[in-house]
Amino acid sequence: MTTSGNHRDRVAASLARQGMLRQLGVELRRVEPGLVELWLPYSDKVTQQQEGFHGGAMGAVADVAGGYAGLTVAPEGMEVVTVEYKINFLASFKGGALRAIGKVAKPGKRLIITTAEVIHVADDGKESACALMQQTLMPVPKTY
Amino acid sequence: MTTSGNHRDRVAASLARQGMLRQLGVELRRVEPGLVELWLPYSDKVTQQQEGFHGGAMGAVADVAGGYAGLTVAPEGMEVVTVEYKINFLASFKGGALRAIGKVAKPGKRLIITTAEVIHVADDGKESACALMQQTLMPVPKTY
Amino acid sequence: MTTSGNHRDRVAASLARQGMLRQLGVELRRVEPGLVELWLPYSDKVTQQQEGFHGGAMGAVADVAGGYAGLTVAPEGMEVVTVEYKINFLASFKGGALRAIGKVAKPGKRLIITTAEVIHVADDGKESACALMQQTLMPVPKTY
Amino acid sequence: MTTSGNHRDRVAASLARQGMLRQLGVELRRVEPGLVELWLPYSDKVTQQQEGFHGGAMGAVADVAGGYAGLTVAPEGMEVVTVEYKINFLASFKGGALRAIGKVAKPGKRLIITTAEVIHVADDGKESACALMQQTLMPVPKTY
Repeated sequence: MTTSGNHRDRVAASLARQGMLRQLGVELRRVEPGLVELWLPYSDKVTQQQEGFHGGAMGAVADVAGGYAGLTVAPEGMEVVTVEYKINFLASFKGGALRAIGKVAKPGKRLIITTAEVIHVADDGKESACALMQQTLMPVPKTY
Repeated sequence: MTTSGNHRDRVAASLARQGMLRQLGVELRRVEPGLVELWLPYSDKVTQQQEGFHGGAMGAVADVAGGYAGLTVAPEGMEVVTVEYKINFLASFKGGALRAIGKVAKPGKRLIITTAEVIHVADDGKESACALMQQTLMPVPKTY
Repeated sequence: MTTSGNHRDRVAASLARQGMLRQLGVELRRVEPGLVELWLPYSDKVTQQQEGFHGGAMGAVADVAGGYAGLTVAPEGMEVVTVEYKINFLASFKGGALRAIGKVAKPGKRLIITTAEVIHVADDGKESACALMQQTLMPVPKTY
Repeated sequence: MTTSGNHRDRVAASLARQGMLRQLGVELRRVEPGLVELWLPYSDKVTQQQEGFHGGAMGAVADVAGGYAGLTVAPEGMEVVTVEYKINFLASFKGGALRAIGKVAKPGKRLIITTAEVIHVADDGKESACALMQQTLMPVPKTY
């Protein structure tokens, strides 16, 4: 039986192993079958030349949110690797935090297709669309 | 008159302002009209759960290499923002460094199209294809 | 004042001028602010080597549905051109028809971002996900 | 032993089965290991509302040129399906013909990555960049 608890453990265990995401400050907020939400608080570790969130940070949280959404529908003992993704940047923001919500659009044994929305949450709670991603994942045997 | 020296100053000045890239350890290696090469040495700041380079790190150096290649062809007083990019991950590697080479495919006043290759360089100098990116940039007035 | 009727006229007038879409048999089904739905009935004009709908046909209806959704939010006297799109093919089908639903994700003066879903409708009415697209449009002055 | 002749037969046999490409007027011009070139002459079957080549036609020849380039490196008895592609449109042209050159960027058993350039050839022979594509293919057993 698969529960949300199992999904969360699986995703959290993988996230804890990711040096880059720890470094940037990425937090796991929600795990459901086919859906994962990550948060990334603003800090000087994630900025570009105009002090907004760096595209690389938006790309990383979108990629990982989509990837973990895919992981929740991958068979036991498998993990997923990103084959490719495409991301549109909609606006740039300073301060607050990024919410990245990854969702499975099409599960599959050979490939999993996902989308992710990145939303900026200002300190006063105001939400604004930030980036939109579409991604292809491939299940592979877990080797660690 | 535009010289490679001016291009390098322009790119280096922007790179120095990017908190995230400093944090990850990105280095500027080559700047020519329409071409920029960045290096990213392996460290625990750029790893995923299997200890290889994180896709987010490959995405960030590809995005930035393409973006700076575009900056070398943007009018004076303008900088560029990433509209969107698409990246394919070809293989995963541990150790060594990543070389990201961004090139302008089509310059333009309203939009600039670029590509980037990310190549892994092992400690013994062996090079392997790592990722391939295609990107759309938009020139915007520089505001800082 | 903008009404759905005006939107429909604007989209229909453009569609009538498109030789390729007439050739393939594309039909306009629904026009709302920020949303356009097209249909493409199965015929030997739209098949690939295994007699399913050709990826090129799915790509064309997705591109055009997204583009016309963008047209509904573009200023009067402007039309839109496709800067780029990215499409994932989810499954292949014979017979029936394709529904392509384009939606504006982010309107804008310089760029408009859209998504499109392509859904297969079998002769018995059964619907299946077929393709998923994400697209960047640019408003340009209408020249005809 | 694999020869260019075998590659050409394999690609030509598949192309002859594609109703949509016959309809549009796509011609096979060059087949080498890892490279395929197609031509699409201008006609009222491939135009958009301003009488230039339709993006759907550019997308279709790019997709197919990349796909056939991939077919030349796929194992015997396999064909390839397009998982996804991303295309940037660089300029629009009337008259003449389109040359689409697909190339394998990374062969593989599970996935093949390709790129394609679409070039416009005017009646006087002048060539201009038209579109740029990056694509993911999946080898599958041939079923016909």
